[in-house]
Amino acid sequence: MEAGLKQYERIIMGIDPGTNVMGYGLLGVKLGKPEVIVMGVIQLSKFESHYLRLHRIFERVTGLAEQYLPDEVALEAPFFGKNVQSMLKLGRAQGVAMAAVLQRDIPVAEYAPRVIKMSVTGNGQASKEQVANMLKHLLKLRDEEMPKLLDATDALAVALTHFYETGKPQVAKGPKSWDDFLKKNPDRLAPRRGK
Amino acid sequence: MEAGLKQYERIIMGIDPGTNVMGYGLLGVKLGKPEVIVMGVIQLSKFESHYLRLHRIFERVTGLAEQYLPDEVALEAPFFGKNVQSMLKLGRAQGVAMAAVLQRDIPVAEYAPRVIKMSVTGNGQASKEQVANMLKHLLKLRDEEMPKLLDATDALAVALTHFYETGKPQVAKGPKSWDDFLKKNPDRLAPRRGK
Repeated sequence: MEAGLKQYERIIMGIDPGTNVMGYGLLGVKLGKPEVIVMGVIQLSKFESHYLRLHRIFERVTGLAEQYLPDEVALEAPFFGKNVQSMLKLGRAQGVAMAAVLQRDIPVAEYAPRVIKMSVTGNGQASKEQVANMLKHLLKLRDEEMPKLLDATDALAVALTHFYETGKPQVAKGPKSWDDFLKKNPDRLAPRRGK
Repeated sequence: MEAGLKQYERIIMGIDPGTNVMGYGLLGVKLGKPEVIVMGVIQLSKFESHYLRLHRIFERVTGLAEQYLPDEVALEAPFFGKNVQSMLKLGRAQGVAMAAVLQRDIPVAEYAPRVIKMSVTGNGQASKEQVANMLKHLLKLRDEEMPKLLDATDALAVALTHFYETGKPQVAKGPKSWDDFLKKNPDRLAPRRGK
């Protein structure tokens, strides 16, 4: 465990899985406020074989999970793509990243790109640069802290989206169903007639 | 390690990854002939959450790899599907299965359904039943050994295809390159002039 991780109430890992470059970003929450622990990219294009790339994703995500001990993982997950071939490849990349996380019993959440852009910038059509600039502002990053590859900021944006989405005040909810109500309130259950 | 696995020169695990049912089949090669070690299915439809299914695939494939110590893994991998959504899901299922295998450094091969059918039955358009019947004949399986779900025989068919494909007599090949030739025939290397 990295020194200093104990100061965080909660650690969120964001992943932007791709087949050429994979971005990651870790947010730590301190006194209810998110700050960047680390962000970066995993270069995959140097590996010619598809399997080597998948293996590399698995190894690196496992390594990040061991090093930073995230409580939750959020993935950027487009649900529609150009063609079935690219979606199969993307699915595989997502699958190995998820396997690395799920084998450690860390909960996973997914957000569509549009939702992430909306959550971070207020505009579902924002460019990667606009997302990066907003992150810079929101997380008080210095120029020299900004990564060259926007896959890293994209990953950080997923983590921040997850922070916002899970921190939203829940609308007061009643029991989902009568069965649910009875389970939670067994004392309110009148004995059946005839029993 | 299962008792009796030592009798095999080579163990091949076949996987037919699906999002509802995942088939697996293990072939052991003894004196150059393949025989069935085990085949079965992993039921996934009982898990409502997509993540639980992926986690289950990872756990079971890891378990099978630990129990049967396959030397190679062969996957049935359709490259074209109905739509991008189903391909993304299939890709994820394949991805977690691959992660379980690749983390143990076991080589993975993929075969398209048409290639498997062709290899096992001689007909690239064969039905699942025809594939199962041919496997029964080729691997001398008794009626009571035949599984109810054909996902299991499908997986066995991938393993058998891999056995056939890798056991094919190689077309006599010359060395790939001059460097390659020299590496394999160091005695044919004349000392460089001037040395």
